[in-house]
Amino acid sequence: MYAASSDLPPAVELGPGDDMAVVRLGGRRLLAAVDQVVAGRHVDPGVTPIALVGRKAITRCLSDVAAMAGTPVAALVAVTLPPGFGADRARALFDAMRATAEQFGAPLIGGDIAMHADADDPLVCSVTVLAEPGPAGVVRRGGAQVGDTLFVTGDLGGSQRSDGEEPPRHLRFEPRLAAGLALAQTLGDRLHAMIDLSDGLGRDAGHLAAASGLRIEIDADRLPLHRGCSWQNALEDGEDYELAFAAAGEVPAAIAGVSVTAIGRFVAAGEGGGGADAENAVVVRVDDAWVPAATMGWEHGS
Amino acid sequence: MYAASSDLPPAVELGPGDDMAVVRLGGRRLLAAVDQVVAGRHVDPGVTPIALVGRKAITRCLSDVAAMAGTPVAALVAVTLPPGFGADRARALFDAMRATAEQFGAPLIGGDIAMHADADDPLVCSVTVLAEPGPAGVVRRGGAQVGDTLFVTGDLGGSQRSDGEEPPRHLRFEPRLAAGLALAQTLGDRLHAMIDLSDGLGRDAGHLAAASGLRIEIDADRLPLHRGCSWQNALEDGEDYELAFAAAGEVPAAIAGVSVTAIGRFVAAGEGGGGADAENAVVVRVDDAWVPAATMGWEHGS
Repeated sequence: MYAASSDLPPAVELGPGDDMAVVRLGGRRLLAAVDQVVAGRHVDPGVTPIALVGRKAITRCLSDVAAMAGTPVAALVAVTLPPGFGADRARALFDAMRATAEQFGAPLIGGDIAMHADADDPLVCSVTVLAEPGPAGVVRRGGAQVGDTLFVTGDLGGSQRSDGEEPPRHLRFEPRLAAGLALAQTLGDRLHAMIDLSDGLGRDAGHLAAASGLRIEIDADRLPLHRGCSWQNALEDGEDYELAFAAAGEVPAAIAGVSVTAIGRFVAAGEGGGGADAENAVVVRVDDAWVPAATMGWEHGS
Repeated sequence: MYAASSDLPPAVELGPGDDMAVVRLGGRRLLAAVDQVVAGRHVDPGVTPIALVGRKAITRCLSDVAAMAGTPVAALVAVTLPPGFGADRARALFDAMRATAEQFGAPLIGGDIAMHADADDPLVCSVTVLAEPGPAGVVRRGGAQVGDTLFVTGDLGGSQRSDGEEPPRHLRFEPRLAAGLALAQTLGDRLHAMIDLSDGLGRDAGHLAAASGLRIEIDADRLPLHRGCSWQNALEDGEDYELAFAAAGEVPAAIAGVSVTAIGRFVAAGEGGGGADAENAVVVRVDDAWVPAATMGWEHGS
């Protein structure tokens, strides 16, 4: 994520640095974010069916909408293709992006296709998604308070692994739009901060901690794990596209059909287990040891 | 431009196919478009200073806002960099994009940086711009009427040529935002259709003709030419980023400091000079001959 300008105009209510930016248009608020899928980096189009590449380009962006407790409005896509990509594959890519976007209420309203100069140059899909705040308003990354519990939806780890006949989960996850909205509506003011898990719980919890000026303690033995995954997988693998959130008080065990698990707590910056440096902004208790986790996880090549 | 879906929801007032899409948010209308700059295709970062690459990525998009007679609101950028691009150059690229975007009233509210897998992979910048309709409303590509005059702002041709000490114009043009707004306000209902000239007057006039269901006759000897340019340059070179528009009645010779020139007229689809096929949707009268021009120009690799 690109760092914010020092002086954004007043219409920009929330600049770069959260899951989405927020702009005021008259009395309404518009959310916007951009994300990209790069061949050789996020997907391998030699292996992955092109329709799943298109699906992922859209769902990654919609996961940001879920993290803000927003509702999608529309999407725009820019695609750079290598020469020789083929008209049929290009059509399959766009058809998948359009169908996925419409399925989740974000019709494609704009698109640009450019050709690379060389046949070896990789496919790049960038997707901008526009959204509106849900009925309960926007939920940011900052705002967690000392004593809040850290929760996650679903199970974590192993998103890159093939699961029997199924393609790996990072290609077929459902963005947690309904869960994000339901959490905001059910918890109201008790929902203090939220993020989606793309880089891995370690790094993404680090973003929550940093934005809130706090530290996070996670209990390894409470992490909800996908079959065959370890606590390290849950923290490091990334691309779970589940929601992690800070809340006070009781939270239902499931919401919008998705399980919710308490996995840790927010503590003051100078307190709790482990050291005081940046990688200890998130620590995991494994047996009786504290393991620094804020730099565990998958950095999307940035 | 990507073709529209057959059934867009009612909130989408104008889908893909124009310079920008239009979405309704409550009582307000939001304009959005995406465009990209690809190294080796639109720019050569081995030759072009990286700040001019960033500037062009933004101004290309703002030219679409001008063509709709809109006012910019914000921009989002996604950049894919080859490994080894260098932190200093990446910073220079983003600084230029941010400064250009802010200069024209479209602060950067979102950004994503991804790294390519290979050092040979080309820089890709995609920019989404958000805008609002100007006070006189949105001006589309369709809507020209038989008997309308075709006008252009500024001078055409030679945008790729270096001009003495200056970099070529495609790297330093000013998007015609003020002229677009002033035309809409001055001409009111007499301004029927507008487009910006990116592909070249031949192709872009073809877009106006097709969207309006009409043909266009252009007089070669009325084309306003940059120094050293021929009428062919004006039609073919592309990347002028001037405005072409259909209007009825008198139009000022200059608007918002930019010259305005009448260069042709709109005729019914079955009438006028030249043949009746698609490439004759725009014809140019050169001496006493009609030259088909709707496929003259520069296709941005799409």
